[in-house]
Amino acid sequence: METLLRFKDRQVLIGPVQPFVMIGERINPTRRKKLLETLAAGDFTVALDDARAQIAAGAQVLDVNAGVPGADEVKLLGDLTRRLIQTVDAPLCFDSANPAALEAALAIYPGKALINSTTGEEKMLDAVLPMAAKYHAAVIGVITDEKGVPPTPEARLGVARKILRRAAEFGLPIEDVLIDCLALTVSADSNAGRVTLDTLQLVRDDLGVNLSLGASNVSFGLPDRKTINTAYLALGISRGLTAAITDPTIPELRNTTLACDLLMGRDEYSMRWIKAYRKAQAARANA
Amino acid sequence: METLLRFKDRQVLIGPVQPFVMIGERINPTRRKKLLETLAAGDFTVALDDARAQIAAGAQVLDVNAGVPGADEVKLLGDLTRRLIQTVDAPLCFDSANPAALEAALAIYPGKALINSTTGEEKMLDAVLPMAAKYHAAVIGVITDEKGVPPTPEARLGVARKILRRAAEFGLPIEDVLIDCLALTVSADSNAGRVTLDTLQLVRDDLGVNLSLGASNVSFGLPDRKTINTAYLALGISRGLTAAITDPTIPELRNTTLACDLLMGRDEYSMRWIKAYRKAQAARANA
Repeated sequence: METLLRFKDRQVLIGPVQPFVMIGERINPTRRKKLLETLAAGDFTVALDDARAQIAAGAQVLDVNAGVPGADEVKLLGDLTRRLIQTVDAPLCFDSANPAALEAALAIYPGKALINSTTGEEKMLDAVLPMAAKYHAAVIGVITDEKGVPPTPEARLGVARKILRRAAEFGLPIEDVLIDCLALTVSADSNAGRVTLDTLQLVRDDLGVNLSLGASNVSFGLPDRKTINTAYLALGISRGLTAAITDPTIPELRNTTLACDLLMGRDEYSMRWIKAYRKAQAARANA
Repeated sequence: METLLRFKDRQVLIGPVQPFVMIGERINPTRRKKLLETLAAGDFTVALDDARAQIAAGAQVLDVNAGVPGADEVKLLGDLTRRLIQTVDAPLCFDSANPAALEAALAIYPGKALINSTTGEEKMLDAVLPMAAKYHAAVIGVITDEKGVPPTPEARLGVARKILRRAAEFGLPIEDVLIDCLALTVSADSNAGRVTLDTLQLVRDDLGVNLSLGASNVSFGLPDRKTINTAYLALGISRGLTAAITDPTIPELRNTTLACDLLMGRDEYSMRWIKAYRKAQAARANA
C-alpha cells in the first residue's frame, strides 16, 4: 500500500517498498527557544532556515507546527505555510491539535498534504477526518482514545481499526491514513519500546497500512538520546515503519534510515547509499 | 530458549529475554596483518591485548581463530587457547574449519565453549557434532550445505532443520545449537540483507532457537561500513537475533546493542544503559 503526498508537481510516496520517508520535525517551537521567540514575533527566518536545512539533509516531507503559547495559531500556521510554500519544494505535514489552524493551512496548500494528527477520540475524528476528505489530504492516526494510550498491542490495534473505519465513513481511502503506534518514553516504562514495536508489526500484518512514528520521545530523560533514537528507527523499520517524524539534520539518524533501505532491499545496486556518501564527502571537503 | 556458555564459574546466557551477546571477532588473523604476523611467530601479545580490549569494551564471549596460512593450526589454536584461559575470564568460541584444531582447544577448555561452526554439509556435521557432544559444547550451525547458500528463507530454514535434526541424533540438546542465517554482502546482491532478515524471523518463529550472525560481512565493498553494520545489528535484533560475532571495540556497535536491549524491554529501569554511559564518561574523563 502506498501513500502519495504531493506539493505542486513534486510527489513523495510512502510505502514498504519505497525508501523510508523522514518527516523533518524541526519546525516546532516546543522546546526550541529561538524558533519560539522568532515565530512569536512574526519572524519566519529561523523557520525557513530550518526548512531548507532539513531538505538539504534529506527530509522528504516537513512537519509544520506553529503552536506558540499566546499567539493566534490559526493566523500563524497560515502565514508560516504561505512562506514555506514560497521557499521549499516538498510536501508539508500540518501539525496542530486545532482544527481551525489545520484548515487555514490546508486551504492554501497547493497539493496533497499530511495532517498530524487525529487520535481515536470521537471529537478529533469528527473534526479532522472531514477536513482531510475535503482537502484530499492524508492523515496520521495516533492510536490513543478517550481512555488514553491502550497498554497492549492488541488494544492499540483496536484503536487503529476504529480510526480506519471512521476514515472510510468519511470517504478517505485507506492508503491516506498512516497509523502512529505511539512511542512512549522507555525511561518511564521499561516495556514501552517493546510494546510499540510489537504494535507496529501487528498493525502492519493485520491492516497493511503505512506506519509513521514520532520517534524522538522514546529516549526522553536518558543520556545519549541520539543512539537510542537511531536504534529505535532501525528496530521500527524492521517491523514495518515506513515513515517517521524525526530530525534529519542528525547525520546518524539520516544515515541509518539509508542503511536500513540498503539492508531491506530497497536500494538497488546500493546507489542511494553511495550517492549520499559522496554528497556528504563533498560537503565535508567544501566545509 | 536459552543457550548457556561457561568459562570456569562464569556463565553467559544467550536468549530472547537476555541482554544481546556480542562475541568479539577480533582474534582472527584474516585481514589483520599485525595479528597474523605475531601469531605466525608464536607471539600471543597482540591476541591477548585484543582479548582484554574486547572484554573491556563489553564482549561477553570471545571468538578465537588461529588460521595462519602455513602454520600448524592444531598446535596454534591449542597454544592460543591455553594463554587466553590464563588471561581473560570469559567463555570462548573456537573458530576453525579444522576439526582437529577445534578438538585441541576443546580438550583443554575449562567450561562450556561455543564451536564456530558446522554447516549443513554431511562431512562437517559428522566431524563437528560428535565433538560438541563429547565436550558438552554449544555449536553454531551455518545454513549452507553441499549446494551452497540456499537463495530463499524457506530453503535456508530447511538447512537449519537438518542441522537441528542431526544435532539431536548426536545427543545435542536443541538449546545448544545456534543458527547462523548467513549475512552475504549487499553490494553483490541488493536483496541479500532482506533475505537474511526474513530468514532470521522465519527460523526464530518456526524453530525457536537462538540466532547468531557473523554480522560484519554484509557491508563489504561499501563506504561507511560502520553505519551499515550497526543498522544491520538493530534490524537483526528486531527479528530475533540473540548474538553476533562482531567488533565490540567499535563504540557505535556496542552502544546500539545496548540501546536495542533497552528498546526491546530487556533493560529494567534502563540500568544497563545508564551504567554503560557512565562508564564511557569516566573512561573519557581519564583519557
